[in-house]
Amino acid sequence: MAKMHEYVHEVQYYETDQMAVAHHSNYIRWLEETRVAVLERNGCGYAAMEAVGIVSPVVSVACKYLRPTRFGDRVRVRAHITQYTGVRLYIAYELWNEKTGELCAEATSEHCFLRQNKPISLKRAAPAFHVAMQKLCEE
Amino acid sequence: MAKMHEYVHEVQYYETDQMAVAHHSNYIRWLEETRVAVLERNGCGYAAMEAVGIVSPVVSVACKYLRPTRFGDRVRVRAHITQYTGVRLYIAYELWNEKTGELCAEATSEHCFLRQNKPISLKRAAPAFHVAMQKLCEE
Amino acid sequence: MAKMHEYVHEVQYYETDQMAVAHHSNYIRWLEETRVAVLERNGCGYAAMEAVGIVSPVVSVACKYLRPTRFGDRVRVRAHITQYTGVRLYIAYELWNEKTGELCAEATSEHCFLRQNKPISLKRAAPAFHVAMQKLCEE
Amino acid sequence: MAKMHEYVHEVQYYETDQMAVAHHSNYIRWLEETRVAVLERNGCGYAAMEAVGIVSPVVSVACKYLRPTRFGDRVRVRAHITQYTGVRLYIAYELWNEKTGELCAEATSEHCFLRQNKPISLKRAAPAFHVAMQKLCEE
Repeated sequence: MAKMHEYVHEVQYYETDQMAVAHHSNYIRWLEETRVAVLERNGCGYAAMEAVGIVSPVVSVACKYLRPTRFGDRVRVRAHITQYTGVRLYIAYELWNEKTGELCAEATSEHCFLRQNKPISLKRAAPAFHVAMQKLCEE
Repeated sequence: MAKMHEYVHEVQYYETDQMAVAHHSNYIRWLEETRVAVLERNGCGYAAMEAVGIVSPVVSVACKYLRPTRFGDRVRVRAHITQYTGVRLYIAYELWNEKTGELCAEATSEHCFLRQNKPISLKRAAPAFHVAMQKLCEE
Repeated sequence: MAKMHEYVHEVQYYETDQMAVAHHSNYIRWLEETRVAVLERNGCGYAAMEAVGIVSPVVSVACKYLRPTRFGDRVRVRAHITQYTGVRLYIAYELWNEKTGELCAEATSEHCFLRQNKPISLKRAAPAFHVAMQKLCEE
Repeated sequence: MAKMHEYVHEVQYYETDQMAVAHHSNYIRWLEETRVAVLERNGCGYAAMEAVGIVSPVVSVACKYLRPTRFGDRVRVRAHITQYTGVRLYIAYELWNEKTGELCAEATSEHCFLRQNKPISLKRAAPAFHVAMQKLCEE
């Protein structure tokens, strides 16, 4: 089983909507916060990649909303790499409410790697990042 | 085939990110803009429903990003109801770039209906909205 | 008196917060939407300026919130250039609720012009935009 | 001199715009994050106040942008209460870039207190919060 990575987001007032819960679009941003933190901690951060001209856009995203989260809630995101091919990166996320201990949402995202707007294989284009990505997947 | 509904969103400067494209999380908001406009035009608007205590949260959302959109682009969202059961509403979306004529993204969303935080059947709880929803699905 | 320019923003569901009003930070975005539209219509749009390497960051912004706005409200923003020096641009805004006819907010913003991260005089660096800006100020 | 309160915000990727800096509207949100954290730590948090029906809307906000902040920057916000009257709360903020040690922005905000949409004096309506607010101002 792949390694689990964790990140905590605190729900902000400006993230609530008039249903008095965090607006669903913000969860998509929390997934990004999680990826950014996890990749950064493991030697393949966005900033380091962009510094050598590589960006990693979102190819697809999906989220199931199981229970609402509210202002002040601490949302613990547990992420793991489900597949990494050198060309594509697949991540799965569980969002847990720390206070209630309940699972609030499940999500996935898929990413490619681009240099000068062209798809690249991280394996060939940036071996050091490739190795770091592989380590992220290990048990 | 279900009726097609259209809505246009103009990409705002504040929606761009440092890749100089619209940030992917905003697409999730454009889907909501589209739903709000389509339901409003067809007699089952969010405001009218909330006025009688009914809210319609997002149960799940998914989006495939095919081509980036940029500041100033006009994104034509074509939506159609893929299923409506009285208890659940399923919508599919295509996002087209008006300038280039290209398909930029495909998405789906799923919704339930709640009154006082409890799931309801719109059919029984609010027949007028139920009829309006059914009309949205017709050819 | 300077020419008045108008723009309408419709308050989106995702812009509301748990007070059931538009979150105050969004007004700052509506000011930008207004500027973008007004400058675009008058021959000195952001995209055209960025195409020749000129950006126009916000130097300061201020907003007084007089009455809340709500989901679905149409907010008519009336903007006028209060001063334009070639180096600095000052804009004043009034935000009116179309439904109630009430003034909801008053705001100001101040802008400079940069090329390659250095302040420039639009007058010398881009005379065509300078003339367009001057016309924006005329009665 | 009033007590200084601190809060750190890390600039997120989704907060950047196509100038590759944090979009100016986000600073207004960071001010809110700071207020929320400072009031919470000091016994007059938003959640506790809303639990007894009191909300504290923003009456006005102003921000001067001195230097841009970028993705990954840690922005240390130093806030202090400049005036508290029981009816109005005035806060001043300095936003410092931890990496460069430079002052990035200066801001102010003004707040009132409402119960059932009517302005109240916190002093009379909620003495415990009033005392907590007063302590926030002390040296």
